[in-house]
Amino acid sequence: MPIETLLPDAAVDLVRRVTSRRAFLRTASFTAAGAAALVACGKDASATPELAAAATVDPKAGAPPAPAATPASIRAAADAMDAMHEKGIKAFPAKTAGLGNQLMAPKIVNGVKVYDLTASEIQWEVSPGQMVAAMAYNGQVPGPQIRVREGDRVRINLKNELKQSTAIHMHGVELPNDMDGVPYITQPPVKPGESFTYEFTAPVGNSGSHMYHSHHNSATQVGLGLLGAFIIEPKVPRAIENVAHDYVLILNDGMHGFTINGKGFPATQPFTAKLGDKIRVRYMNEGMMIHPMHLHGMHMTVIDKDGWAQPQPWKCDTLNIAPGERWDVIINCNNPGTWAFHCHILGHAETEHGMFGMVTALVVSK
Amino acid sequence: MPIETLLPDAAVDLVRRVTSRRAFLRTASFTAAGAAALVACGKDASATPELAAAATVDPKAGAPPAPAATPASIRAAADAMDAMHEKGIKAFPAKTAGLGNQLMAPKIVNGVKVYDLTASEIQWEVSPGQMVAAMAYNGQVPGPQIRVREGDRVRINLKNELKQSTAIHMHGVELPNDMDGVPYITQPPVKPGESFTYEFTAPVGNSGSHMYHSHHNSATQVGLGLLGAFIIEPKVPRAIENVAHDYVLILNDGMHGFTINGKGFPATQPFTAKLGDKIRVRYMNEGMMIHPMHLHGMHMTVIDKDGWAQPQPWKCDTLNIAPGERWDVIINCNNPGTWAFHCHILGHAETEHGMFGMVTALVVSK
Amino acid sequence: MPIETLLPDAAVDLVRRVTSRRAFLRTASFTAAGAAALVACGKDASATPELAAAATVDPKAGAPPAPAATPASIRAAADAMDAMHEKGIKAFPAKTAGLGNQLMAPKIVNGVKVYDLTASEIQWEVSPGQMVAAMAYNGQVPGPQIRVREGDRVRINLKNELKQSTAIHMHGVELPNDMDGVPYITQPPVKPGESFTYEFTAPVGNSGSHMYHSHHNSATQVGLGLLGAFIIEPKVPRAIENVAHDYVLILNDGMHGFTINGKGFPATQPFTAKLGDKIRVRYMNEGMMIHPMHLHGMHMTVIDKDGWAQPQPWKCDTLNIAPGERWDVIINCNNPGTWAFHCHILGHAETEHGMFGMVTALVVSK
Repeated sequence: MPIETLLPDAAVDLVRRVTSRRAFLRTASFTAAGAAALVACGKDASATPELAAAATVDPKAGAPPAPAATPASIRAAADAMDAMHEKGIKAFPAKTAGLGNQLMAPKIVNGVKVYDLTASEIQWEVSPGQMVAAMAYNGQVPGPQIRVREGDRVRINLKNELKQSTAIHMHGVELPNDMDGVPYITQPPVKPGESFTYEFTAPVGNSGSHMYHSHHNSATQVGLGLLGAFIIEPKVPRAIENVAHDYVLILNDGMHGFTINGKGFPATQPFTAKLGDKIRVRYMNEGMMIHPMHLHGMHMTVIDKDGWAQPQPWKCDTLNIAPGERWDVIINCNNPGTWAFHCHILGHAETEHGMFGMVTALVVSK
Repeated sequence: MPIETLLPDAAVDLVRRVTSRRAFLRTASFTAAGAAALVACGKDASATPELAAAATVDPKAGAPPAPAATPASIRAAADAMDAMHEKGIKAFPAKTAGLGNQLMAPKIVNGVKVYDLTASEIQWEVSPGQMVAAMAYNGQVPGPQIRVREGDRVRINLKNELKQSTAIHMHGVELPNDMDGVPYITQPPVKPGESFTYEFTAPVGNSGSHMYHSHHNSATQVGLGLLGAFIIEPKVPRAIENVAHDYVLILNDGMHGFTINGKGFPATQPFTAKLGDKIRVRYMNEGMMIHPMHLHGMHMTVIDKDGWAQPQPWKCDTLNIAPGERWDVIINCNNPGTWAFHCHILGHAETEHGMFGMVTALVVSK
Repeated sequence: MPIETLLPDAAVDLVRRVTSRRAFLRTASFTAAGAAALVACGKDASATPELAAAATVDPKAGAPPAPAATPASIRAAADAMDAMHEKGIKAFPAKTAGLGNQLMAPKIVNGVKVYDLTASEIQWEVSPGQMVAAMAYNGQVPGPQIRVREGDRVRINLKNELKQSTAIHMHGVELPNDMDGVPYITQPPVKPGESFTYEFTAPVGNSGSHMYHSHHNSATQVGLGLLGAFIIEPKVPRAIENVAHDYVLILNDGMHGFTINGKGFPATQPFTAKLGDKIRVRYMNEGMMIHPMHLHGMHMTVIDKDGWAQPQPWKCDTLNIAPGERWDVIINCNNPGTWAFHCHILGHAETEHGMFGMVTALVVSK
């Protein structure tokens, strides 16, 4: 069986990245051995010049041999890699322009909670110095966090300042059909420069963690940032909902890379608690891939799925969040320290350059 | 950190598709801004000529500037995109040749329910005008729906008219080993032109949503259509199983693209109910990717996993179906209207051309 | 809509592999029809020379037509494909050098269970004749299986003989922060040639299936093999844990391809039981993709998630394991025979060459 049958593309890519992007690694014999092994297994190194360059002995022709690894050169390579890892972690939480998911206060108009949302194109600093093209509600990625209560009358005035049509779907909220936000099925698209008003009563019995996002050209518009948390608080909270902090953690993997609340590590915000606190985390996946979120040091007690109570709470330390899903967990912060908290698809969280993307921390202070 | 570290390949592809496939978009300044932003972030636009072409100012050399966007040109571009979206939705449900998953009546021979299945190569119209090469049972993709009852004696006569060997595995059904359908482990492969008979008793206590599919060269054969629903009805149904409609929804993502019951939107069939109906949906994933299915307007109550009752029913609006899994849900159709019903991996459901693939609707009529 | 919109990359790849890698298939008219159909649908065959070569009539120019398929040539092609399938299955379980996940006996030092783990670079035979570059603990992929009991004092002496720094994280074990194994957050990296000692008490109430793995440059280091099972046995086992065999099944999809306990089929080890045995399987995913594991012939009863008891056991035949997750199941081996047991992402388990990767068997003997 040829080796490529056994090597997923992602693995091939990883090997190439290891061997091509880090010149200092070329002095380490492992890389050379790895490349040679691949060659021996039938992988044609000539098709991947980085691999060929990395091999100590070029299997094809008389390339000059790489210098032999010495303890000093190995240590220097390790120190160089480690310095990048350290730099990233020491930079956390890194300052960037813009903050998404900010709690939005409604205007109250005749007893109606009114939210004005303007969709526009912006530049967004996803991690320090990395400006990306984005589509945003009120200049935020994710858009402002909306929190209402069961039975509230709610009005959302959408103004479209994009250069394409749009519409808003309240994902998880059981609304009358004409408020569902799907162009050509429940409403016309909202054209550039135009507006549309969604008005509805937050359904009683439908509380919990929901989302709002574009439902027009949505793979692009949601991938670029047109999304936010829409939370319906219950009239009568359960005892387990009595927490010190209620955090929202929105995952995305579109054109801005792997992000938590619109930022990639080290620009992600840490979550904080005092020893003994119970906190709630509302996971929401607005991306196109699963993200199994892993918390170090403490477990999570899962209470809700898509806003609906699970029959009984259950425990885990790694929770798989699929696109469109919301999962609510309670964390009993009984272990002091700074705890890594990340997607366990390791390629969404770390490269040989250090941590990036879907990494944050839960800081439990004494 | 270079931007490509942050940009998953899928996102790069998406940006490229946005900028390359839609000439009319080139007049919209967003696209240009997006490309320019990517360039500014270190992405070498020369490697992606579409991006370079889309940029207002070519960062490399003296390319002629694209015409400036005006309100009129922006509106024209939005209208052009919207027209494609509207056309797709207005075409739904679109007529295509062939219908899969049709309930098959058995011949009764001496008290045995006999099903004749012929595997052959056909052309299949997956969406209007899109003919694809398929492998099918009895000319259907998915194959005919088989429904038996616990304790029934069942005979399946497989005739192989393919040009490669095949075999049928009853996925989820606990059969005697020699009926399990795995070539060289439980039987010889069924050669082109030859036949094989599976005969067994549908196990009591093993009722629910199962599947039948090829277990030989299966990545290809199942990807091309050799699959179907195999449902074992219980002798004594539970009260919750008393529904107005019992629908099967088979997901696939092989060589025919993203399909529901063998068709891509707008050729998918809508699911219908009357206001107040309870309906059952049996999700089955025959593909290689997860598909988190999201229903608008109403939630789903999950009752069974792989045919086995969950300890307690639980609620959600987005249900992640992994390859090989079956999940049964009950929907209380208490919200009238036409509701979008789709995979929430948005790239499986919508492009800038409009909805496609894993999209259908639940139509609740008053 | 162009066909490529409907065809996921994986499907395109699959079609190409079918048509390019198997010369004997070129005589089968299906392949030709498939290629022709794709061409007819607008896929430019000139960009995929394999497709063009496979088409009976080259759509571009006057290539010589392929010979017409005859019953004899079809049978010969089927026999050739089947021979490869048979060869793989008949080779199972194939001998390879090296065995991972071997239970490690601790040294007892003053009442402390001491485990010495040395990380080094090795060559690993992942399937017969396929040597790959690996990083391993004590020369094993996965590393030695560690089993302790709630309340045990445990010491792990890590020696780093790699050419890059490393560290060990006990995934799922709730330890004091300074034992958590995350460089620059909880400890300095362990440099090449250096050592680090982890010492802790296995937390009471935190029993179950956990893992140890590198948390430094982890996408690479875990992908190359620096991982193992870390099991904490409860002081008072539940009745359901009384089993004839307690198996660990670690999934990986990194640079070694798709593996179970470090080997690809047919070098994977079969799991065995006697008729009537109850066995436990501890699934652990150390890869970057989901793997929905499907057992033929019998169902699985899920008891634990990440070491924590589920509120109630529940049944399935296909269990989706996400990266970082552990799931424990009980199998009541009441059906004699050799049963296929594999990841149901079919591309992780079978190609037209036969089964490979994430395939093993459960052998229930009378």
